[in-house]
Parts: sequence; C-alpha cells; structure tokens
Amino acid sequence: MPEIIVYAAEGRSAEQKKSLMKDLTDAMVKNFGVPAEVVTVQIVEAPKANKAKGGIPFSER
Amino acid sequence: MPEIIVYAAEGRSAEQKKSLMKDLTDAMVKNFGVPAEVVTVQIVEAPKANKAKGGIPFSER
Amino acid sequence: MPEIIVYAAEGRSAEQKKSLMKDLTDAMVKNFGVPAEVVTVQIVEAPKANKAKGGIPFSER
Amino acid sequence: MPEIIVYAAEGRSAEQKKSLMKDLTDAMVKNFGVPAEVVTVQIVEAPKANKAKGGIPFSER
Amino acid sequence: MPEIIVYAAEGRSAEQKKSLMKDLTDAMVKNFGVPAEVVTVQIVEAPKANKAKGGIPFSER
Amino acid sequence: MPEIIVYAAEGRSAEQKKSLMKDLTDAMVKNFGVPAEVVTVQIVEAPKANKAKGGIPFSER
Repeated sequence: MPEIIVYAAEGRSAEQKKSLMKDLTDAMVKNFGVPAEVVTVQIVEAPKANKAKGGIPFSER
Repeated sequence: MPEIIVYAAEGRSAEQKKSLMKDLTDAMVKNFGVPAEVVTVQIVEAPKANKAKGGIPFSER
Repeated sequence: MPEIIVYAAEGRSAEQKKSLMKDLTDAMVKNFGVPAEVVTVQIVEAPKANKAKGGIPFSER
Repeated sequence: MPEIIVYAAEGRSAEQKKSLMKDLTDAMVKNFGVPAEVVTVQIVEAPKANKAKGGIPFSER
Repeated sequence: MPEIIVYAAEGRSAEQKKSLMKDLTDAMVKNFGVPAEVVTVQIVEAPKANKAKGGIPFSER
Repeated sequence: MPEIIVYAAEGRSAEQKKSLMKDLTDAMVKNFGVPAEVVTVQIVEAPKANKAKGGIPFSER
C-alpha cells in the first residue's frame, strides 16, 4: 500500500503508460514517504464506447 | 467530479451502454446540481468468467 | 450485479443521496434489463481536502 | 452487498479465478454473516503493461 | 499486488473485519500462488445512508 | 477524465495529501497530454483497522 487505480479511455502507448506509472509511483514515494516497492499502480482502460463525459461516449466526442 | 464507475459482466450492446451512461449522468445533474460536463462515467466490463455472484461465475449461472 | 460506485466530495444531504441512488438504480434497470433488487450503489464520499480537480483540493476551489 | 473487487495482472486460468471467487465469497459469508447470494466478486484484470509495482511494469519484472 | 477492495455498509466489529481480511488474503495466497505479504485488502465502509440495494438506502431497509 | 483513485491508510497531513494530488495530476498532464483541469484525484482513506497487508491490519503492524 498505497494502491493507485487510474481510470482512462484506451489509446495511450505502452511507453506513455510505463512513464505514467513511474511518475505516479515517484509522487507517492516523495509525498507519503513510502518505499517505491510497496506502491502498486493499475491502469483500468475502457474502450471508448464504455466511457463518457457529459453523458456522451468518448467514441463520439 | 463526481465520477461514476459501473462494474458489470460483458454482454450489453454499445447502444445500451451509451443510453445507460446518458441516464446516469442526467441523474447526477438532477440530484447533485452539477453541470453534465463535469460528470464522468466508466463501465468496467468483465468476461463472465471473471465475475461471480454467490460464488458462482456468471459463465456458469 | 451490476454495482455502481460514485466518488464524490462531501457536502450533499441524505435526501440528495437517497434520490440519486434511486435514479441510478432506475437507469440500470431501464437500460440493462436487470431487476432493481440486484443493483447496488455505494457513494464513496471524500472530505474536500482528499479530492482534487486540476491539482487543487476542493477545500480550496 | 458486499461487493469485492480484485485488481490483478493477467495470467491466471479460469479454474484459478473460479476457485478464488468461491473462496472470497465463503470468507464474506463466514465473517460478515451474509448469505452467499448477496456477495458479488469481480476480478479486474490488467495486461501486464498496465500494472506496476515499484514503478516497474509487470511486463518487465 | 493483487489488491482487494471490499465495499460494505458500516456495522461490523474490528474483530469481524480483521478476520475477513485474513481469510481474503489466505484465499489469494491459496489460489493465485502469491506470498501473503504482497496482498493488500482495504474495506471501504459507507454510512448506511450512502449505500443502496434495489434503490433503497440501507438506512431504511 | 482520467480519474485517479488512491487507496491508503489514514495518517497523512492535509499538506501531504495536497502535494500528492498536485504531483499525481502533473504526472497525468505530462504523460497523457491532457489539460490539468480534466484530471480528478480522490484519496480513499481507511482507518488502520480497515486495511491489511499480509493479512494483518495496519492497526497491528
């Protein structure tokens, strides 16, 4: 612990996701004073038809 | 904010999911008095083998 | 199933939350064709210091 | 209710997941005194590139 | 990893929650073949007015 | 979107949480190329009796 869950629409590269998870982990280490090894991050990606903002699916925005 | 996450087994059409996300957003606008544009909805779908009720996977119910 | 989780900052009345949960449930019944009794909703409220938009806590927005 | 969400990297068999969901449900019934039929479990699996520990994706660990 | 999140209404004792978290962890170890030390469990409790089944808050059921 | 949920045991100061949410937001902006204003972060804190690692509550670790 702590655990970080990111909810996002699909469409980012593996490189973007890897770098994001590294930076989120670093932010946790810096601010909460925990060792990196106890921090887990999971990105929960949704097809654009499964995510909406303002009631409109990202597949149509 | 607010954010709505829906956990469901796979098997609904894009049309059903679009209409659901619209209605959930409208419910948030109506009851919490927020503009639609700040409401996000994500449907986290699971294969039926990854979801259970009463200890029995939906793939066998 | 399905399960709906709502993440929101504190500050709504019990009446607002009750009405929201009723409307979210109705939206699920209407669109996914499930009986109301299998739909659960949980509102996860955060103190305003625990939730941020644009990197700024709601306690300061 | 209650609802159990499990966040895990991909790579387990359907048999492992079925047995896990059964055991998690039994644990809920035993400790919280609820009937099994009201317990739902959903396993949210991530591709190994979408999950990290210590800032390193499971695809590289 | 893996991480287990339990969504439940308030009202269980510390002893019930401790025993539940132990049993959920054991289920993960047994079925997924991971060491106990990498398993985290968090119980997200809601006041009964913040959780509903069938559209009715647990505070009124 | 995207939305970030952090699951953590209680015990951090408002200052630590504010700084964490700022840094998590910055990480999202940098890596996913989204404006800060669409990023929400919520920290879901648990009493130490409601969170366990290795099956042992943080209240006893």
